[in-house]
Amino acid sequence: MAITRRGLMMVLSSPSGAGKTTISRRLMEAEPGVTMSVSATTRPRRPGEVDGRDYYFVDPTDFHLMVNRDELLEHAKVFGNYYGTPRGPVEAALKAGRDVLFDIDWQGTQQLQDSAPRDLVSVFVLPPSTRELERRLRSRAQDSDDVVAARMAKAADEISHYPEYQYIILNDDIERSTAAVRAILAAERLKRERLVGLPDFVKGLREGSGG
Amino acid sequence: MAITRRGLMMVLSSPSGAGKTTISRRLMEAEPGVTMSVSATTRPRRPGEVDGRDYYFVDPTDFHLMVNRDELLEHAKVFGNYYGTPRGPVEAALKAGRDVLFDIDWQGTQQLQDSAPRDLVSVFVLPPSTRELERRLRSRAQDSDDVVAARMAKAADEISHYPEYQYIILNDDIERSTAAVRAILAAERLKRERLVGLPDFVKGLREGSGG
Repeated sequence: MAITRRGLMMVLSSPSGAGKTTISRRLMEAEPGVTMSVSATTRPRRPGEVDGRDYYFVDPTDFHLMVNRDELLEHAKVFGNYYGTPRGPVEAALKAGRDVLFDIDWQGTQQLQDSAPRDLVSVFVLPPSTRELERRLRSRAQDSDDVVAARMAKAADEISHYPEYQYIILNDDIERSTAAVRAILAAERLKRERLVGLPDFVKGLREGSGG
Repeated sequence: MAITRRGLMMVLSSPSGAGKTTISRRLMEAEPGVTMSVSATTRPRRPGEVDGRDYYFVDPTDFHLMVNRDELLEHAKVFGNYYGTPRGPVEAALKAGRDVLFDIDWQGTQQLQDSAPRDLVSVFVLPPSTRELERRLRSRAQDSDDVVAARMAKAADEISHYPEYQYIILNDDIERSTAAVRAILAAERLKRERLVGLPDFVKGLREGSGG
């Protein structure tokens, strides 16, 4: 009796400027067994974006149908547009033993926590210091102090949700942070609840028929 | 405000013959931040054993005093001798941010689970197959089939307790299994609850005084 594994859902959240996007990209490069979740959205497609790769572009009527049919694992309205995670592709990946990475905020994470608590692994990435966070937010463009201050305030609000996450990474070194996320992934794959066929395997071992 | 970390207690359990002792030794060599827990016992010291390194050798009266004073994290009677884990050294290590490795069976693990559930990380090592388990138990000495059969029966009983553990490692390759235990250690060190000073650090970040 072979042991297989149910995939897991890994959420990486952080305030912007903490380095999450870089860590996600490195993780996807290093871990071929991980799929990036693709969201559905009602916002218009931008030049260069591909339907089904960057987003599933749907109209508001279809989006609301998906919500009503409980076909979304989580959804939210941001600046007048709807965003959500279709349940079907994620569930298919998990059943096939593939892990799914989510780049969503604390509100989406809370909804995933409610809809699939056993599959969820949540990681919050913190900037190493206020100075470093401000430096990163400032370096993005030649913005006014007001814009930077507004971004800092938004980051402060996002940071306040760290207690809702299982793992905390202080991102002072991108290599080390990527290694940390990979260790979390490797460890969580060994959790007993994710292993399928374990009772039969152990029954075989105990009865002397295993292997 | 610096973030520090409370140490964790890692238990490795397995039936004999599953490779746990080798994994423990490799882990201790690779991870200088991990201390091996030293048990107290009433069994007589054997040649070559050092008091305080291999065991704390105590007489039965002292052992029972330790039990009555609640100075043991777990204890059990095995073949007429008492064994137990003194609470003091473990608690001191955890407070100093050092991790402690335990080589105890499922009964000891259950008691640790009751006395310190948040600090405990429990790992069960399974043999890859019945054939391999029997091969390993048989290769230990030129024993009769009866002796090997008795060991297999004992192993089968031990294996039945795997559902009480958080992580499962199927030991078909000692290098891979050691890497797996190290990944579990690396991940568990990032659990939010183990980080000390995180609320103050985040307060500093949000108020702009952090770093």
